[in-house]
Amino acid sequence: MSDVSLPHDLAIHGDAGGTIIMLVMDGLGGSPHPNTGRTELESAVTPNLDALAERSSLGMLAPVGNGITPGSGPGHLALFGYDPVESMIGRGVLSALGVGFDLQPGDVAARLNMATLDADGVVTDRRAGRPSDEDGRRVIETVLGALRAPDGVEVTLVHEKEHRAVLVLRGEDLGAEIVDTDPQRTGLSPVPATAKAPGDPASARTADIIQGILDQVRKILTGEPRANSFLARGFAEFTPYPTFETRYGLRAVAVARYPMYRGVASLVGMSIDGVPTSNPGTVEILERHFGNYDFYFVHFKDTDSRAHDGDFEGKVAAIEEVDALLPRITSLGPDVLIVTGDHSTPAIYREHSWHHVPTLIASRWARPSADAFGESSCRGGDLGVMLGKDLMSLALAHAVRLDKYGA
Amino acid sequence: MSDVSLPHDLAIHGDAGGTIIMLVMDGLGGSPHPNTGRTELESAVTPNLDALAERSSLGMLAPVGNGITPGSGPGHLALFGYDPVESMIGRGVLSALGVGFDLQPGDVAARLNMATLDADGVVTDRRAGRPSDEDGRRVIETVLGALRAPDGVEVTLVHEKEHRAVLVLRGEDLGAEIVDTDPQRTGLSPVPATAKAPGDPASARTADIIQGILDQVRKILTGEPRANSFLARGFAEFTPYPTFETRYGLRAVAVARYPMYRGVASLVGMSIDGVPTSNPGTVEILERHFGNYDFYFVHFKDTDSRAHDGDFEGKVAAIEEVDALLPRITSLGPDVLIVTGDHSTPAIYREHSWHHVPTLIASRWARPSADAFGESSCRGGDLGVMLGKDLMSLALAHAVRLDKYGA
Repeated sequence: MSDVSLPHDLAIHGDAGGTIIMLVMDGLGGSPHPNTGRTELESAVTPNLDALAERSSLGMLAPVGNGITPGSGPGHLALFGYDPVESMIGRGVLSALGVGFDLQPGDVAARLNMATLDADGVVTDRRAGRPSDEDGRRVIETVLGALRAPDGVEVTLVHEKEHRAVLVLRGEDLGAEIVDTDPQRTGLSPVPATAKAPGDPASARTADIIQGILDQVRKILTGEPRANSFLARGFAEFTPYPTFETRYGLRAVAVARYPMYRGVASLVGMSIDGVPTSNPGTVEILERHFGNYDFYFVHFKDTDSRAHDGDFEGKVAAIEEVDALLPRITSLGPDVLIVTGDHSTPAIYREHSWHHVPTLIASRWARPSADAFGESSCRGGDLGVMLGKDLMSLALAHAVRLDKYGA
Repeated sequence: MSDVSLPHDLAIHGDAGGTIIMLVMDGLGGSPHPNTGRTELESAVTPNLDALAERSSLGMLAPVGNGITPGSGPGHLALFGYDPVESMIGRGVLSALGVGFDLQPGDVAARLNMATLDADGVVTDRRAGRPSDEDGRRVIETVLGALRAPDGVEVTLVHEKEHRAVLVLRGEDLGAEIVDTDPQRTGLSPVPATAKAPGDPASARTADIIQGILDQVRKILTGEPRANSFLARGFAEFTPYPTFETRYGLRAVAVARYPMYRGVASLVGMSIDGVPTSNPGTVEILERHFGNYDFYFVHFKDTDSRAHDGDFEGKVAAIEEVDALLPRITSLGPDVLIVTGDHSTPAIYREHSWHHVPTLIASRWARPSADAFGESSCRGGDLGVMLGKDLMSLALAHAVRLDKYGA
């Protein structure tokens, strides 16, 4: 990872400043419903978010840049103030962090999919018929029971969800510039694991180790009707990021139901202390921690999930559920409360999109401009269109945690 | 200083274009009054600024970047089109320019604070009880009467204000990468002057010279009850900037009551010809010069000063005073008249802040959008949110002084 630093090497106050809550509704931004012209957020009845907007600076967030549709990794890295281009995380690392694996610098991680291969070794199902979590876990245990680790390399295999698992190699001089073995469509054989470029002996050696493991897996799973092989992709070496503490002087905690978001948060040094199993449970954990940290990242996922389903009304309801929980959050009295998303997921588009994300920053020092929280009010807001990676500078400024720049 | 250049190396017209006045109200941007929801600028009765806004392109200026609170140096450098990060001025240089010292390339300047040390050499007051200007000047004269300059180095010591003074060294092979001797809080001894990093003999040698001077000062001021030592900080070597003339083809003049703003202006090659002692006097000097230059930087300070006092109504009155002077400025008939600030200083915040600055560009080529000049109208304006360093490109464009970029 390239060096990432706050714009302009901002000096962080030695003295403590205010407390910040960053509330992320995943995929918050939407698009107008064809019948009403109103987005999901504008269709939702959100008295609490609207009241908050009345005492907030409003604006539109471009998570990565104009026209760029971010994945969850870059989207969240940007929200956390890390340049999402310079500090791109490999998917393998993201998955390993997501399952709570304690990565060490130099570890190489990859995502695994269970897949079905026919007698000729051609992929007939890239997801092995989407096994249940239970069945997927059983397959991984079968492999773990029989796999022989190569000399000098520690192999970890963790089931993630359904057909997905994570592979981590630990050892000397590993490389991660390895092609995906997933051919990306059925009717093709898996791609042999090889280094992406010549002259990279560490990746070449690691690719051989990976291929050896995949060959073993193939034999171990011969008897499986569907999940009879693994495809690997997203090879990545773990390089630690500068933490929230070193970068911002913030002791930070993440409260998120889903492993991926806890993964990105722990990548930047946030504590994880309790895993909620519901949205009210998310707020309960926040309430329990409040006062012990400087920064609270609070993640709600359903807005994104419903939009992926193409369920406009479902996304509206997910927003309304968060709105109903909001008074418990505002009553904690944070100095700065940010509400935003890591990207837009318009229900009519059913996927992450490049559209700007409505964003509010509530603090004593806000410049309010409207009495509603929505795409229309935010586009006329005081903050204009801002880059995702600038949001943390604004958060720190509103918390009076930044020194003046220059005399 | 790093190379600074106009975005895209814009070509300046060979032919003369229009005349530009840049009127800066220091700390112009504000925040809503809790009772009215209107900022200082929106509370002020400004018929002349409002009439000007009606024929202006409006927008919001981010002097340095989102969340960044600029000092006056970076704020003005940005307004003058110099990247405020790449072309950061050291505080020492800024102070030396501010007191009107004629810096030469290679000079090393530092800020001095008179301080009180106890018998153990521990700092008990970093501002020596804030002496009056008169008393501060007397202490500097005492030092000047007794100080022996080191061989081959010319030492200049100029009183600035109260406990503050400026030190300039001139000689061969000086370096300025020197740690501050100010320990930043009481109860500690001054930090010995040393080079910041090894392998920098010029700075190491200069640090020794500085320490020798500070030791002499300590002895000279033994009898002083309070101002019995100096603390030094902000060491900086003077490197000349490309001038307005070379960069933009503009013969420029600065009209400003306060030395710091004349200092930054002369740093970029603006002429200083007459020092006003009042706001009407500022306009008089502008009137006298008008026609002899291409670019006029006109600075009004009271908006910032009143806001630092937390005096909302005082800042409103300061804006109204400038508004009353405006007809004399517009009647000069500049082709382009810009009204902006170098940063925001909300009276409720009492300090410089990161908030965007309302900005207007009046010219034949404007795209007006509102009939009032204020934060609310400017945030909906045609220019959107622009970076401070882009304002000069817009000024030159409105003055029809820039060639087309590319075929």
